[in-house]
Amino acid sequence: VKLLTIARDLQRRKARERHQRFVAEGVRTVEALLASPLTVTGLLHTADLMEDARGAAVVKQAMVRGITVKEVSDADFASAADTDAPQGVLAIAEMPSATLEQTVAAGTRFLVLDALQDPGNVGTVVRTAAALGVHGTIVLPGTVDVWNAKVVRSAMGALFHHPVLALDWEAFAAFAAAHEVPVWAADMAGDPVESLDRRTLPPRLALVVSNEGAGLSPHVAAAVTRQVRITMAPGTESLNVAVATGILLHALRPA
Amino acid sequence: VKLLTIARDLQRRKARERHQRFVAEGVRTVEALLASPLTVTGLLHTADLMEDARGAAVVKQAMVRGITVKEVSDADFASAADTDAPQGVLAIAEMPSATLEQTVAAGTRFLVLDALQDPGNVGTVVRTAAALGVHGTIVLPGTVDVWNAKVVRSAMGALFHHPVLALDWEAFAAFAAAHEVPVWAADMAGDPVESLDRRTLPPRLALVVSNEGAGLSPHVAAAVTRQVRITMAPGTESLNVAVATGILLHALRPA
Repeated sequence: VKLLTIARDLQRRKARERHQRFVAEGVRTVEALLASPLTVTGLLHTADLMEDARGAAVVKQAMVRGITVKEVSDADFASAADTDAPQGVLAIAEMPSATLEQTVAAGTRFLVLDALQDPGNVGTVVRTAAALGVHGTIVLPGTVDVWNAKVVRSAMGALFHHPVLALDWEAFAAFAAAHEVPVWAADMAGDPVESLDRRTLPPRLALVVSNEGAGLSPHVAAAVTRQVRITMAPGTESLNVAVATGILLHALRPA
Repeated sequence: VKLLTIARDLQRRKARERHQRFVAEGVRTVEALLASPLTVTGLLHTADLMEDARGAAVVKQAMVRGITVKEVSDADFASAADTDAPQGVLAIAEMPSATLEQTVAAGTRFLVLDALQDPGNVGTVVRTAAALGVHGTIVLPGTVDVWNAKVVRSAMGALFHHPVLALDWEAFAAFAAAHEVPVWAADMAGDPVESLDRRTLPPRLALVVSNEGAGLSPHVAAAVTRQVRITMAPGTESLNVAVATGILLHALRPA
């Protein structure tokens, strides 16, 4: 099958799940992909990309590695790309095979995404979790597919090494119970995180963040043992979900 | 002058500075603007907006307040709007007249933006500063104009009440010296913020955040007395600037 056809097909979540492949778009993201342990199966680029030194270097690196590389017209490239400014390069790769067990083995901190829908926010949230040393991110139903090209792009390479697991509510509740992981959630009605003594935090902890405004899904709320909030200035109502996630993960880091 | 002509003109920074007016786009942003103390001088909308209950309510509220309201064609609206999905409504308002003195009077925490260029990031950074109780944001040369419609939109209303001051390097250095405000900067080479004892922080503090990758401007570096960084997991390299700003402002909040 032609690379272009595969890339177009992978714009659909069902196709990504069936083939266990995804598309990474943009010079910086493809660079991060080539530097990761993931298997890259093909690269598409426009003629213009080769005018850019950094772009040409990416193509050369792929060729040296024996990856199938194909130059396509601007129109064909645009038909396969999913982000706003894909910069004339995209690569197809195999999804990492994260298993629950390997993630849990050494883990103390987990992030749980409950029905987060904005791809840019989800990518930034995963990037944040990876940078702050979270051992795995669990994605619950209603959340955008993390292998969506927009999420991959905004995660800035974090998805290529940070374990992400899609679980349904029952599997998540079973995970938390089996591994004795208390489930805390970010919620405006919770305890101020500033009042917590970090030395008294549980050794393992999963933090649930949910859609701004929508609040926790009922299924998730049932598994939550404590709610925490960030104290905000009077008259202000909210933080961007990635910013709030960063502040909470940092404040709740292991002592 | 026609409202449409004014809105188009305000897409240019020079026109905004000359008229001391700006454009707020989208239902949520215009709602926040109407709820703020700022003077709104006009509102443009499409016919489609009135099909939406929330959109129609915004228009009605503006009319009740005696604000000039005009319905325009989709094409005319698009020619005046600057953000990707302006939702068929924009409003023109007078910039708040923030003065350095009123900001400083009661302030203990300040945020300083050094050559931040992405409008979405700058808006989210200002929203974060406002929510975390920062008393004023100082914008240095090389930073995108905060009254750009994209910044206004992503600030989610924060610009309508949080004081923002544009200063050149000399004025900023003079401000820091005159008011005895130590200037700290976010930098990968700094001290880990996790190692600081919040009880020993200076009573007043200005935190400088700069362009990801580019580092501090030389002019700013000369005024910086301490650099701080967020400890990151091995193999990860960066956080989104708004996320990093949120974590640092939270970690450096007054004791």
